[in-house]
Amino acid sequence: MTDTDYDLVIIGAGPAGLTAGLYASRARMNVLLLEKSVPGGQILVTDWIENYPGFPEGISGYDLAEKMRIHALDLGLKIETAEVKSLTLSSPTKEIVLSSETLRTKSLIIASGASPKKLGIGEDKYMGKGISFCATCDAPFFKEKTVVAVGGGDTAVQEAIFLTKFAKKVYLVHRRDELRATKILQERAFANPKIEFVWDSVVTGVEGLFGIEGVHVKNVKTNEVKTIKADGCFIWVGILPNTEFVKGTVATDEFGFIMGNAKMQTDVPGVFVAGDVRDTPLRQIATAVGDGAIAAVSAEHYIENL
Amino acid sequence: MTDTDYDLVIIGAGPAGLTAGLYASRARMNVLLLEKSVPGGQILVTDWIENYPGFPEGISGYDLAEKMRIHALDLGLKIETAEVKSLTLSSPTKEIVLSSETLRTKSLIIASGASPKKLGIGEDKYMGKGISFCATCDAPFFKEKTVVAVGGGDTAVQEAIFLTKFAKKVYLVHRRDELRATKILQERAFANPKIEFVWDSVVTGVEGLFGIEGVHVKNVKTNEVKTIKADGCFIWVGILPNTEFVKGTVATDEFGFIMGNAKMQTDVPGVFVAGDVRDTPLRQIATAVGDGAIAAVSAEHYIENL
Repeated sequence: MTDTDYDLVIIGAGPAGLTAGLYASRARMNVLLLEKSVPGGQILVTDWIENYPGFPEGISGYDLAEKMRIHALDLGLKIETAEVKSLTLSSPTKEIVLSSETLRTKSLIIASGASPKKLGIGEDKYMGKGISFCATCDAPFFKEKTVVAVGGGDTAVQEAIFLTKFAKKVYLVHRRDELRATKILQERAFANPKIEFVWDSVVTGVEGLFGIEGVHVKNVKTNEVKTIKADGCFIWVGILPNTEFVKGTVATDEFGFIMGNAKMQTDVPGVFVAGDVRDTPLRQIATAVGDGAIAAVSAEHYIENL
Repeated sequence: MTDTDYDLVIIGAGPAGLTAGLYASRARMNVLLLEKSVPGGQILVTDWIENYPGFPEGISGYDLAEKMRIHALDLGLKIETAEVKSLTLSSPTKEIVLSSETLRTKSLIIASGASPKKLGIGEDKYMGKGISFCATCDAPFFKEKTVVAVGGGDTAVQEAIFLTKFAKKVYLVHRRDELRATKILQERAFANPKIEFVWDSVVTGVEGLFGIEGVHVKNVKTNEVKTIKADGCFIWVGILPNTEFVKGTVATDEFGFIMGNAKMQTDVPGVFVAGDVRDTPLRQIATAVGDGAIAAVSAEHYIENL
């Protein structure tokens, strides 16, 4: 990759970034999409997607990611693997600093997504040794084993159900006494004999020498602490925006999500935001593709009026 | 249909309304979707859809509409055919007046879409006799004939290209000297030998006894008027919101589109808006599904807090 000028650089190849790339390519913009790992974003770690309109039978996260990638590539989108280190957005030509070079672009769409929030119970130490954020990736390692799942939202409940395809028992630990997940998922979880609910409780730690052998659970009402004997611990307690490289260049909300208006404009002219990294009321594939389309068209209009 | 209470009524079964229905059904809300004609909305009159992410080969408008309808029905959505006459939104229970009865609901999503704008050149008189707003519907009637297409945006250019599959010649009349459509469509139109561009011009009328025989075109720079001999006239000069039944109940922008914030809330509590009928910066299937998902989740939260 040489130090080229682009009309538009898109950071992140999840549904938002790929859709922005699709629209920008149809608009024949000189566009580059940067992805630090594999195109698809968080849908890659989603086993089965039931709520993206147009796929009545559902579709695997991998397949939908691949369809979106092919769709954008077929329209001429250039996708490169690179991690963005930092941004310089103070002048009209925006600079994107990668490890080996700096790219210059007229406009920018930040679609870098979000990552699972950690509990601070030794996630780094036990990663790959019992702690996981991805049932799709790791559930098969827990065949006929006992696992603890943490959380009460859509992701936690859906993935806990998925875990029961492998594990013999799933404890679902949630800090409140009811789930936040959408009703259809709650019904399925309650009807699943392999799932046992641990209400009003939080996970405070794990134990085990080479892998996980037990999970410490504290009841937030009684303060009682017990250890659940388990071989794994899956954590789905929310997300954090992937904005390490953004620091201070665009306005964010109190949680660090980038603020964008109805046109996906940030507070920096020519810099747009789309998808889970935005301060949006809902984070779904359906909303990400909408964001991506709008951000691309807004970038196109911005370029035209330079 | 009896005078029942619903948690949520959705008006309009285009991509926005169907997605809202899908999400509300997954949330196990007591929801009814009203559609005055056939589910699908404007995508039904779109021959081929190339920019809905996830369908790299493209998909016909009819097929995508059907997939979205089945998707929502499979999740338990109830869809009924009825035209909404008026709304009463002044009390917490919203009333939806149909021709035969009045429905009462706790919340409402208006996703009634938009319709093609008319030129005022006798559209009603010549409808079905040469004037059309739908190439998918009517192009086959113009096999080996000459037609005039009006407009310069995405719809006009895409549909003009589609017309060339049947017509021997398509005049594309546009009031400016360049197209507004996205570049990939412009390239295809310019490369199409059957399309002749009539720049800086507007259509002022049509002539013909039983059907169209000629189209009057005025050059807006020279004021010169000429008659193009043609058998049909397809009009794609923008859209108007379908809000006849809404009149005065919710706030709209200067063009009559319903104002909605990031949560798709209108200025009336419990009334939400989604899709083309909203004052949105972009009207695409990708944005409509995003709107629909957000509106449904917002309605769900509204109900929970009643």
